[in-house]
Amino acid sequence: MRYKITLSYDGTEFCGWQSQPCGTSVQDAVERAACKLFCAEKIKAVGSGRTDAGVHALGQVAHFDAPKSLPIKNVVGGLNAYLPQSVRVLDACEVGEAFDARKSVKKKTYMYLLYGGVQQPVLNNRVWFVSDLPSKEKLDAAVDAVAGEHDFATFMAAGGGAKTSVRTVYDAHFERHGEFTAFYITANGFLYNMVRIITAQAIKSARGDADMRELLAARDRSQAKELAPACGLYLYKVDYGE
Amino acid sequence: MRYKITLSYDGTEFCGWQSQPCGTSVQDAVERAACKLFCAEKIKAVGSGRTDAGVHALGQVAHFDAPKSLPIKNVVGGLNAYLPQSVRVLDACEVGEAFDARKSVKKKTYMYLLYGGVQQPVLNNRVWFVSDLPSKEKLDAAVDAVAGEHDFATFMAAGGGAKTSVRTVYDAHFERHGEFTAFYITANGFLYNMVRIITAQAIKSARGDADMRELLAARDRSQAKELAPACGLYLYKVDYGE
Repeated sequence: MRYKITLSYDGTEFCGWQSQPCGTSVQDAVERAACKLFCAEKIKAVGSGRTDAGVHALGQVAHFDAPKSLPIKNVVGGLNAYLPQSVRVLDACEVGEAFDARKSVKKKTYMYLLYGGVQQPVLNNRVWFVSDLPSKEKLDAAVDAVAGEHDFATFMAAGGGAKTSVRTVYDAHFERHGEFTAFYITANGFLYNMVRIITAQAIKSARGDADMRELLAARDRSQAKELAPACGLYLYKVDYGE
Repeated sequence: MRYKITLSYDGTEFCGWQSQPCGTSVQDAVERAACKLFCAEKIKAVGSGRTDAGVHALGQVAHFDAPKSLPIKNVVGGLNAYLPQSVRVLDACEVGEAFDARKSVKKKTYMYLLYGGVQQPVLNNRVWFVSDLPSKEKLDAAVDAVAGEHDFATFMAAGGGAKTSVRTVYDAHFERHGEFTAFYITANGFLYNMVRIITAQAIKSARGDADMRELLAARDRSQAKELAPACGLYLYKVDYGE
């Protein structure tokens, strides 16, 4: 029986989604909870993709195969009973074996959360504090360059292991709510650190200290060294075209 | 030299503002930082009032007497260098000896933050998750009863040591931003747990399960037992009539 689950987590205390030899991963937490719930020795959870240490999720998706079927309500409630409070299962459903949380992804949306006000400690590890943030119009104009199919080599950190650095960005825009500014970006896939590099470079470009089109055309990471910290990044939504 | 400082803190890991025999208080953290900055053996910080364990502040005010004068920029920067990240000094100024952070208070505003959406772990310890929250109109109608000068004995927990339970509420209203609902209440002073009891009873009243006017008139805490959890409460602003 294959289950698809939607997860929300506070990534602050985790080494990321992916299981690591030395570190507490969200994947480990989910697998432990599933093993307890289904009285199984080993259950492997497959996520839609990795999230780095400190990165949060509002709508991560994973699948796992369980040795038996349980009512959906019990799957959600049971997993949440065994998971730490920093991870919550928001939803679950039974899916066929053709569904793969990683391979079946059509689109993903990330949100990057910026805060332009004074440093309020309740927002620590949840936003990137940036003072004198450029206007929404200037930020939108800067990220306009990344929409469409491009080689995003400039915006890719080493170590991701991607076969190609070509990706299609369907949407990239900023929204402002008081002192909060959220950057939403939807694509068919993301390279290692891509959203964090784009966010930092978009702010720099909106300030007139860089040019997103030139950076994109350069296909050279050394021209775009700054990246936004992990704590402001949220995996917002995974779309399977359903 | 007397300094007035404005503080923001994440109350999650603290036993509250007030120094306690066993526990880490915000007051202790501020006093330790001030001692280091001014190379003093003992400095006592006086807050505008206590905040309980788990309660946050966006604008707590305190004063302390320092053995010497430093430029304001160095007071703010120096204290922040010695304070943990969970406490930030937002502002500081020199004041005369007539100013007392507790006794000079004219009005205080608290905010209580409710979240009506699914439980997102990044909001843990920062909001009270309440599903099926009544409309802003119903909530405003419920708290309308507390505006003005009243005996708030119904909305006072035992142990506060107040001489009288009469207080004047200048304003009480709700604001909704998406799934967030914030309750703002301004008064000349607050009784022990007053905001948390009013918040819980206002929601109950807005649902038709209680009547704020009757509760207020009863002057009897046993009729209003529920109180909202500490984690949703923020000391928002302290007003000295300047």
